[in-house]
Amino acid sequence: MATETPDPFTPAEYESRMRRAAGNAQAAGLDGLIVTPGPDMEWLTGYRVPAVTERATMLVLAAGREPVLVVPALEAPDAEEAPGAGALTFEGWRDGQDPYQLVVPLLPLGGRLGVSDNAWALHLLHLQRTLRGSAFDSLTDALPMLRAVKDQAELARLAAAAEAADATYEEIKSVRFAGRRENEVAADLAALLLGHGHSQVDFTVVGSGPNGANPHHEAGERVIEEGDTVVLDFGGLKHGYGSDTTRTVSVGEPSAEVREAHDIVRRAQEAGCAAVRPGATCQDIDRAARAVIDEAGYGEYFIHRTGHGIGVTTHEPPYMIEGETRELVPGMCFSVEPGIYLPGRFGVRIEDIVTVTETGGERLNKTSRDLVVVH
Amino acid sequence: MATETPDPFTPAEYESRMRRAAGNAQAAGLDGLIVTPGPDMEWLTGYRVPAVTERATMLVLAAGREPVLVVPALEAPDAEEAPGAGALTFEGWRDGQDPYQLVVPLLPLGGRLGVSDNAWALHLLHLQRTLRGSAFDSLTDALPMLRAVKDQAELARLAAAAEAADATYEEIKSVRFAGRRENEVAADLAALLLGHGHSQVDFTVVGSGPNGANPHHEAGERVIEEGDTVVLDFGGLKHGYGSDTTRTVSVGEPSAEVREAHDIVRRAQEAGCAAVRPGATCQDIDRAARAVIDEAGYGEYFIHRTGHGIGVTTHEPPYMIEGETRELVPGMCFSVEPGIYLPGRFGVRIEDIVTVTETGGERLNKTSRDLVVVH
Repeated sequence: MATETPDPFTPAEYESRMRRAAGNAQAAGLDGLIVTPGPDMEWLTGYRVPAVTERATMLVLAAGREPVLVVPALEAPDAEEAPGAGALTFEGWRDGQDPYQLVVPLLPLGGRLGVSDNAWALHLLHLQRTLRGSAFDSLTDALPMLRAVKDQAELARLAAAAEAADATYEEIKSVRFAGRRENEVAADLAALLLGHGHSQVDFTVVGSGPNGANPHHEAGERVIEEGDTVVLDFGGLKHGYGSDTTRTVSVGEPSAEVREAHDIVRRAQEAGCAAVRPGATCQDIDRAARAVIDEAGYGEYFIHRTGHGIGVTTHEPPYMIEGETRELVPGMCFSVEPGIYLPGRFGVRIEDIVTVTETGGERLNKTSRDLVVVH
Repeated sequence: MATETPDPFTPAEYESRMRRAAGNAQAAGLDGLIVTPGPDMEWLTGYRVPAVTERATMLVLAAGREPVLVVPALEAPDAEEAPGAGALTFEGWRDGQDPYQLVVPLLPLGGRLGVSDNAWALHLLHLQRTLRGSAFDSLTDALPMLRAVKDQAELARLAAAAEAADATYEEIKSVRFAGRRENEVAADLAALLLGHGHSQVDFTVVGSGPNGANPHHEAGERVIEEGDTVVLDFGGLKHGYGSDTTRTVSVGEPSAEVREAHDIVRRAQEAGCAAVRPGATCQDIDRAARAVIDEAGYGEYFIHRTGHGIGVTTHEPPYMIEGETRELVPGMCFSVEPGIYLPGRFGVRIEDIVTVTETGGERLNKTSRDLVVVH
């Protein structure tokens, strides 16, 4: 299956993202943003640092001001080649200089500032000391929707990543399961994702038998047996955007109990997806899926939230969880992934990436959610 | 070349590290430590989280108290299998619960706390709000020597990693340079490191011609030419401990100017290594190397500090930099890596990992530092 490489994002797109981010920050009551290496910085500037280290790199954004990248002088030549560099002014600093002082003139005094979730504590503590009187909030708390609403070019990438994950699932069904270790099937999943154009594999969960009852079990030495239920949850990045899908398969004929649990999860996932529409809240999605499992008497065995956002990472806001009353907006993308986990016995989870359309929701993963028998 | 897999660290060793860390924290005026996923946690507990995410995992240490790991319930089964788990009490939390509240009873009220450098700002900001009255410092600022002094088992791993890097250098000298892209030579370096037992490659710098003058250039599309000077700086992890070495080679016969610059750097690196002994300060090492380059008239072209610590990461305290007056102690390991960078023309850097002995310093990298001609 050939997939085309999408056109790279243009310098104008990066500039527009930075301008929107500064505007959204202002609208959220923030006087500025300090963005550190990682997904926020990559999304805003296209700049991926060679390594995240104790040397501070900080993108400083504030409404009505030009974006500035404070960067170690050693890394400035690389930063100046980033796709979004044209919209940036660079402030290089050399070993022995204080990079945090360079931020002072770039922001209003004593304001409220948003900082990347994954900024190092080392840097935040120095910023707090240097920008005395400023208050800091994480972007998840202060501006969680910064990257949440995807544009057409981003949706196309997410769809392509989902398509590659779907192709991976179609092919993994015909590999041998019985008698092989989970690790070996996980390696097959990784190879398939890479073969279908992923540049990075983030996770390849193969939870067989009792291991499937631990939702965050990755894959281990356990040898898969005839009669096992196996949770397959895999994803990564393709062209810079994430995939994440889960199907649960049966090695040989499933028991009536497994069939029942699978059917409940399938209906719960269906209900969660069906609840997606503009104006619904995030907790509505969680509630819709959870209600099906609760009604079937398995509520205590659904031990995690229903979903999470996806974009330039495989795990980001918005979160589909009780208490999250934020409303869905067209262009948001997230997982819907209810499960049932019976300790010591088996687990079932079904997951698709769903995007909010003008009128409802659309699954980006298209493979069958029926219980499949593998060998 | 066969190298043996070292015995794993024992539960008792992890327990001892945790006890020492809590004691050292107390001695440094800290009332406790909050350690988040990454090298600190791996070193203290052997626990490597499946993925660092917005779900908080926190190891809480305080003198006279039992170590507690606050961990997402989903990940508790994995955490309980960590090599250091025997010394830990686990506090699982489920989606929707507040993990930061779980930390409150584990630490004295209103104290001074050390937090991992790379703790996410998201988590630190919540901790600051929850533990009101507590003051936070990064471990680099408050307890920089936590992992700095290596024991015999750690030194053996660092020596094995250095040996693998040395073997990589010996073999890379015979690959083709002229006419190939930097990226291709970098891929050779990575393959050799993996072939010599590395589990992870952190960097493979191939800085040819003018690219060598950018110390943090990794490797790019530039085709290496006859007459180029090429900086080769590579490393990663083997058995959990780091390698990092640099040699500069000449593709064909070097010019007199390259020979001169290389000789100055070689002498500077020699002087830096010769200055290593217990009781010398970190800045003494920087000064010793820098003096040679200054005296030769190239001072303005040595644009970075002289070195950095190495252990379970390839970049950590102590830093060999002006202003760092900390004294060297037997068992410390760090790089000594002066360089000269002539913008637009070429660069030269030579780097070894050095460990502090009872009487001086010992290089773990043993390959020749003479200027070698490759083809």
